[in-house]
Amino acid sequence: MIEETSKQNIEVRIQMASEAYQFLKNTTIKQRAALMNAVADRIEALGEELLTTAHAETSLPLARLTGEKARTVGQWRSYAKAVASGIYTEPRIDLAQPEKQKGDLRKYNIGLGPVLVFGASNFPFAFSTAGGDTASAIGAGCPVIVKAHPAHPKTSQMMADTISNAVKEFGWPAGIFSHITETSYETGAYLTQHKEIQAVAFTGSFNGGKALFDMASRRENPIPVFAEMGSINPVFALKNLIEDKAEALAKEYISSLTLGVGQFCTNPGVFIALKGKSLDRFISAVNNEVQEVTPAHMLHNGIYENFEKHKTTAITQPDIEVIASKQQEEGKGSATVIKTNAQNFLHNPVLSEEVFGPFGIIVTCENQEELVQIARHLKGQLTITVAATSDDVRENAELIHLLKDKCGRLLFNGMPTGVEVVYAMQHGGPFPSTTDARFTSVGPDAVKRFVRPISFQNWPDEFLPEELKNQNPLQISRIVDGEVNSGSLKPETV
Amino acid sequence: MIEETSKQNIEVRIQMASEAYQFLKNTTIKQRAALMNAVADRIEALGEELLTTAHAETSLPLARLTGEKARTVGQWRSYAKAVASGIYTEPRIDLAQPEKQKGDLRKYNIGLGPVLVFGASNFPFAFSTAGGDTASAIGAGCPVIVKAHPAHPKTSQMMADTISNAVKEFGWPAGIFSHITETSYETGAYLTQHKEIQAVAFTGSFNGGKALFDMASRRENPIPVFAEMGSINPVFALKNLIEDKAEALAKEYISSLTLGVGQFCTNPGVFIALKGKSLDRFISAVNNEVQEVTPAHMLHNGIYENFEKHKTTAITQPDIEVIASKQQEEGKGSATVIKTNAQNFLHNPVLSEEVFGPFGIIVTCENQEELVQIARHLKGQLTITVAATSDDVRENAELIHLLKDKCGRLLFNGMPTGVEVVYAMQHGGPFPSTTDARFTSVGPDAVKRFVRPISFQNWPDEFLPEELKNQNPLQISRIVDGEVNSGSLKPETV
Repeated sequence: MIEETSKQNIEVRIQMASEAYQFLKNTTIKQRAALMNAVADRIEALGEELLTTAHAETSLPLARLTGEKARTVGQWRSYAKAVASGIYTEPRIDLAQPEKQKGDLRKYNIGLGPVLVFGASNFPFAFSTAGGDTASAIGAGCPVIVKAHPAHPKTSQMMADTISNAVKEFGWPAGIFSHITETSYETGAYLTQHKEIQAVAFTGSFNGGKALFDMASRRENPIPVFAEMGSINPVFALKNLIEDKAEALAKEYISSLTLGVGQFCTNPGVFIALKGKSLDRFISAVNNEVQEVTPAHMLHNGIYENFEKHKTTAITQPDIEVIASKQQEEGKGSATVIKTNAQNFLHNPVLSEEVFGPFGIIVTCENQEELVQIARHLKGQLTITVAATSDDVRENAELIHLLKDKCGRLLFNGMPTGVEVVYAMQHGGPFPSTTDARFTSVGPDAVKRFVRPISFQNWPDEFLPEELKNQNPLQISRIVDGEVNSGSLKPETV
Repeated sequence: MIEETSKQNIEVRIQMASEAYQFLKNTTIKQRAALMNAVADRIEALGEELLTTAHAETSLPLARLTGEKARTVGQWRSYAKAVASGIYTEPRIDLAQPEKQKGDLRKYNIGLGPVLVFGASNFPFAFSTAGGDTASAIGAGCPVIVKAHPAHPKTSQMMADTISNAVKEFGWPAGIFSHITETSYETGAYLTQHKEIQAVAFTGSFNGGKALFDMASRRENPIPVFAEMGSINPVFALKNLIEDKAEALAKEYISSLTLGVGQFCTNPGVFIALKGKSLDRFISAVNNEVQEVTPAHMLHNGIYENFEKHKTTAITQPDIEVIASKQQEEGKGSATVIKTNAQNFLHNPVLSEEVFGPFGIIVTCENQEELVQIARHLKGQLTITVAATSDDVRENAELIHLLKDKCGRLLFNGMPTGVEVVYAMQHGGPFPSTTDARFTSVGPDAVKRFVRPISFQNWPDEFLPEELKNQNPLQISRIVDGEVNSGSLKPETV
């Protein structure tokens, strides 16, 4: 149950968001980019207090938080730059051609309306109150209502105040950004089902994301849900590469698996290779590497308990061998790696489930055919890594071609942790890694999630949005009569 | 129930489509564009037989069918040109920067996988077997399975053979295009729920489209449904314009309302204006115009019966006045226009439902506030027309700003029937006019419905798709390190 006062507060915030949407619809990409840069400046200026608050609430090391803060500032700035470039407004103009009796048509993208963002626990800055979802929705022209994550309330409040202050400084409606700190499940459900909410962004568990998707698609007016629900991020280690570099690969793999106590969506939870001496070398090296990793506190006790529970479930499945295990310490994530064979992996669905934390499964295959069988069997993933030489790629063309169907990002060597905030990043993948493989939640392209096109037919220039006016006052690239055009339209052609 | 032989046939066709998808994933945009142009040439060459067959099956006049055939050929060609330009692959390249320890990331869009297309009855060429959905899905790199519309089986078969012959001529897998002529509801449901199908495109009724959406979102792996379900396409006629042009507007309105016996998704079913002498002149002129329209056969008897049923339901609501009615003729759609007041329209949901055929409602408002109330009350529409002078626009800024939330295309005068196949067209709109306001089903942008991004991290150039190779062999525009770049990447930078 939501308390009546909370419900009233939510209604007020939603009403404010709806009004703010009418305002934002009249802003240009340049104006929204300016606001985003102002938010970036203010977050950057927050200084030590933000870091120590977040450290106290999440146990994340200060160095990591310093990096994440810089990333978050960078997200606001790079998304702002992309928004200002006009890339997400996709302006298209088809001029009137009297001989065809057709009119003047001009299309561009506007924001969907109020967006609900769920803060995540594992990135208190980059995927939370002032994270990429909030930045991209505001860039698209959508007011944001954040449901704060309960794991780091003070950190979130500092970020929320920062955004609200920037909005206030601009003299823009306060409803552009709201922060709901009432954290019950029912509050999230109520907001997701509210008729004024036009899209939902979420990073978290499969159960959480799928529940939101189901609610949103069963509304009277269904809305999109962009839920990033994590995955097991398989690594396929092919014959020549593992033979050349078993030990180096083990070092790299365990380093990625245990980075941030394994609390990344792109944590490489499954390692698949042909059985044999090279894999034995790899496994032996994995055991050594695991012993070198010092267990550390997980983000909060709920995550720790889930980690222990799911790890125990996995370990107690039939035909499992624990090949590396660091001694358990209360509240800390201690790395564990198990081994099983391909047929067991293929037939026991428990082994394909994500264990959030430093936990990996090595799957041994009898032959190339089993590698392909696993590729076909895999559900959608955020990432898949192919650890391979060029010869391996040539000899496994079918496998690699199939893997494209199962992931958003395909790596040639390297490890999937470490998500770059650039245009070419795809942080998303086929279901169930996300609810919508067509979009990314990282990189400027995240803005695309929150826009829709509208066409204007035969409107006088004075009433058109700046993005579509003849003079092209924003100096953006547009498609005019089918061709890319960055100029203004000459009077004789209009 | 689906017969066992039909089911087996479907399974064979789906298996073929899945294999064809692996083939298409390896084709370039230029190769797919070449296939699309070959289909266009073959449709163009079909000649008289296609037209007479379609005429016999649909009652549509030969002149209209000639135009629709040209439009269909034009769709294949213009979508091919757009696909070949690379606009829908959205290539993004972020080169490795050693000082940042980040890798080389390259992203582009690939096809979603096998797409299910439902043929429509009202456009036997342009929205059916070889219509825009099929063209755009193939352009995106997706195999297509069409569920043929039962209203024009011979026409559809001719089109299906034409596409299949082009595929065969190219030596491409037959599974790129399949035509299912088993037309039961169960067949459509079975296909929509088949795990290999990755997206659905549909043009038709709300009940049909919504049922597909519900099925698709309740699958174990939910998939997008692009259902264009029609709307009532309101016309807001503002004070000065109607005063200046009541009679001309009536002529234009009735011409649009009865075009093609009113069987267009963009048929302007509701006309909203302030009450008064100007509106009285308009209504009187409407009655005259309606008498001039000769009733004609509707597409098929089911449509005729539904038209009569829904028309009767609307007419028999309380506080309705029939202001123009052409005498009814069996099997033919006879134009009817009724009148009601704003409060009745706002409170009786029956009056907001689409009556597919030549049927219109005039809603009289007491004041500007009622116009705004109706704008707020409206559900999502494909189009909204503002019949206005420039002064009217200035005096009704709030109304017009609100209307943007309720439609995909906003017209300044003119009538919504007549959908141009150009980039700037938006044929789509907020729910319930479609299931997804973010996409269009007409114009090259229709291709966007069927792609998803995939990132390649650190892959050697030789293994990258042509769209992403250093040399840019397809000579397409790409975003390289955040800037638009149409050239090749110089060796020293890679």
